[in-house]
Amino acid sequence: MNSMKVGLLGFGVVGSGTWEVLKNNAEEIARRAGKKIEIVSIADKDVNKVKSRLSAYDLNNISVLNDAYSLINDPNIDIVIELIGGDTVPLELILKSIENGKHIVTANKALLAKHGNKIFSTAHKKGVMVLFEAAVAGGIPIIKAIREGLTANKIEWIAGIINGTTNFILSEMKNTGMNFEIVLAKAKELGYAELDPTFDIEGIDAAHKITLLSSIAFGIPIQFDKTYIEGISKLSQIDINYAEQLGYRLKLIAITKKRDKGIEIRVHPTLIPENCLLANVEGAMNAVLVQSDAVGPTMYYGQGAGSFPTASAIIADLVDVTRSYKVDPHYRVPYLAFQPNSLSDYRILHIDDVITSYYLRITTIDKPGVLSDISKILTDFNISVKSMVQKSSNKEITDIVFLTHDAIEKDIKNAISKIEILSFVKNKITCIRVEKLV
Amino acid sequence: MNSMKVGLLGFGVVGSGTWEVLKNNAEEIARRAGKKIEIVSIADKDVNKVKSRLSAYDLNNISVLNDAYSLINDPNIDIVIELIGGDTVPLELILKSIENGKHIVTANKALLAKHGNKIFSTAHKKGVMVLFEAAVAGGIPIIKAIREGLTANKIEWIAGIINGTTNFILSEMKNTGMNFEIVLAKAKELGYAELDPTFDIEGIDAAHKITLLSSIAFGIPIQFDKTYIEGISKLSQIDINYAEQLGYRLKLIAITKKRDKGIEIRVHPTLIPENCLLANVEGAMNAVLVQSDAVGPTMYYGQGAGSFPTASAIIADLVDVTRSYKVDPHYRVPYLAFQPNSLSDYRILHIDDVITSYYLRITTIDKPGVLSDISKILTDFNISVKSMVQKSSNKEITDIVFLTHDAIEKDIKNAISKIEILSFVKNKITCIRVEKLV
Repeated sequence: MNSMKVGLLGFGVVGSGTWEVLKNNAEEIARRAGKKIEIVSIADKDVNKVKSRLSAYDLNNISVLNDAYSLINDPNIDIVIELIGGDTVPLELILKSIENGKHIVTANKALLAKHGNKIFSTAHKKGVMVLFEAAVAGGIPIIKAIREGLTANKIEWIAGIINGTTNFILSEMKNTGMNFEIVLAKAKELGYAELDPTFDIEGIDAAHKITLLSSIAFGIPIQFDKTYIEGISKLSQIDINYAEQLGYRLKLIAITKKRDKGIEIRVHPTLIPENCLLANVEGAMNAVLVQSDAVGPTMYYGQGAGSFPTASAIIADLVDVTRSYKVDPHYRVPYLAFQPNSLSDYRILHIDDVITSYYLRITTIDKPGVLSDISKILTDFNISVKSMVQKSSNKEITDIVFLTHDAIEKDIKNAISKIEILSFVKNKITCIRVEKLV
Repeated sequence: MNSMKVGLLGFGVVGSGTWEVLKNNAEEIARRAGKKIEIVSIADKDVNKVKSRLSAYDLNNISVLNDAYSLINDPNIDIVIELIGGDTVPLELILKSIENGKHIVTANKALLAKHGNKIFSTAHKKGVMVLFEAAVAGGIPIIKAIREGLTANKIEWIAGIINGTTNFILSEMKNTGMNFEIVLAKAKELGYAELDPTFDIEGIDAAHKITLLSSIAFGIPIQFDKTYIEGISKLSQIDINYAEQLGYRLKLIAITKKRDKGIEIRVHPTLIPENCLLANVEGAMNAVLVQSDAVGPTMYYGQGAGSFPTASAIIADLVDVTRSYKVDPHYRVPYLAFQPNSLSDYRILHIDDVITSYYLRITTIDKPGVLSDISKILTDFNISVKSMVQKSSNKEITDIVFLTHDAIEKDIKNAISKIEILSFVKNKITCIRVEKLV
């Protein structure tokens, strides 16, 4: 029985982890897959770094190259793992690999969120697989769960904590009472945040991932440019405290939801009830909650990043390729869960058309009439208030916090503009979306 | 494109749910599977009940039979869904269906726990699939996660809440303070417990399921007769209260764990830390926590029973068959996650050899010397105490509660026998296993 021959592009944290897990667990993996899966070639710009990790045996059996193209042009290689990151170079390499008839396994969510449609249609024509379990929520088999485990269902919505950096920061802010900047510095120290943390803290990474989940949940082309994105860098401790008093936790939640008029895809700080399971996902852990019509809610929890957890997902994809590469492509699991000729053209809704509940913190001068003036504006925009908190204070300035019932985002925005110009309202209003979940 | 033709054995709660979900979500399912999946034949001993549910269109297109054998002998049928329950009749029907070249989808854990090895080896020879996602944890795709999502990993242990009835009862006992019998009566009223609840409350149902999970986690033959089983019917409110004071919750946990000397498979009431996610799985919900070497802990949560959730799992299996039936059997997902010729002969450990921590509640006369006599016995058996609670009381009789560090079960049993014969010890000692989980 021949082995599956794998070429690895990129020997960083995840690449070297993949090599190590494949080696450590080779026997178990072969007993499951029915044949050996072996890395026969590694391409990395730092050839010496790679060689220094490999054993004498490995060096005899693995070609270490600094030219990615000689790897993807090697006719002996069945599967190419792309772990370079970024989107220009990998796109070229993946398209060329597909042209060469290689199956692709990648963890590159940024690439798929931007160029996934092109990659999948090219792969479809060529009859090769492109698997990306590692691109969303690291080691949690969430792509598999949605594409294969929930096939009986109309999926209604997905809500996930799918960025470990931001969840770590928000957990720390809550648990220590420290400010965003201090906690971010700590996250960098501990390796939970990168030196340039923009992609994580501004929600872009989570947006890449929820865009992919939305496509496989609803059978729509990937539309990253229509995903609404808001990060956590402007959040303040005061809102975490109010949230806690009201029985909520503040999390960066990525959501996609099917409504009659279209599909919402959005990432933003969100208050969720403290007794729901997602609220208790702490630190750098990830979790994805999927609401479907037949099975109801299901949740998937685990490590969303890191060398070995991500390797776990990549290797699961290698095993899937090993199990399916001889199959008539029509019978394989479709790239986006639905057959390529069966994708839908549901509209992606603008953030102004989103319907959810809201937390509004309004800083005002503490004097009679304030509440009735604000309430009148809310009523004018059909916003109904679920609860309200005003701390009695001896200061001249006070915070009033409203939790609304479901409302349309543009009504909330318009109401906020009107309220902010009231003479007694100080500062900008803090507005945070609230999701009930389950 | 031809449709997949399905025959359904048993039109009870799950059978009729499967028919209904397949009908309601036919379009989505076909868009995913690449072809239509349709029930063409239903066998049930109550033909009129079936007919009364079907529409005129259905009655024209679905044969309703009271003879299961004419269904499984019908050459037009590709897949047989077995939802009869019990183990004598279904075993015969499934073996005959396999002989007829049908693929099998079943939710019957009792059958598989007892006769799975025979069923799988027969199916292997015939080259047909036997899928059983619905047999464990209802709608949660846990079989798929373990067999396909975690293939890179050495699995270390699995701990699950996989019986909704007992979890409902224990949640209610904790939340209401009511006794087992009263809560059981309520569970029956609400449909969470059957009229004869023995299988659920005595842990047998959970044992069937953890036996199956153990096999697919560790690649071992199914060995239900070696699974240790202890139910919840003897639990009292007093231990739930002590647990809460100590920061623990009392749950019926099904565990399987690989140790150097062999594999533990056991179901019993268990104290788990209140801040772990499993502890917060309430009511009739199910959750399975899997600890693996590469990905670390992952958890899977959802509805473990009920008509539509179970149907969700059955239909996911139908889609999987649709995707794989043309595949060379060698490349399909193996029945027990590992290739049939690669199963291991790890020993299943006797409960006496299990290593875990323990909660001991000892009712004694409150007098000097009690503690030192008990402590001495524990020390003699190498049992080290992690914490101890003794409520100061004015009564003559008092409870002393010990939490131990890890110890060997037979040492605990021997220590308990010695302590129970001490003159000042009243009643039998209550011993509950404690798991740290993650």
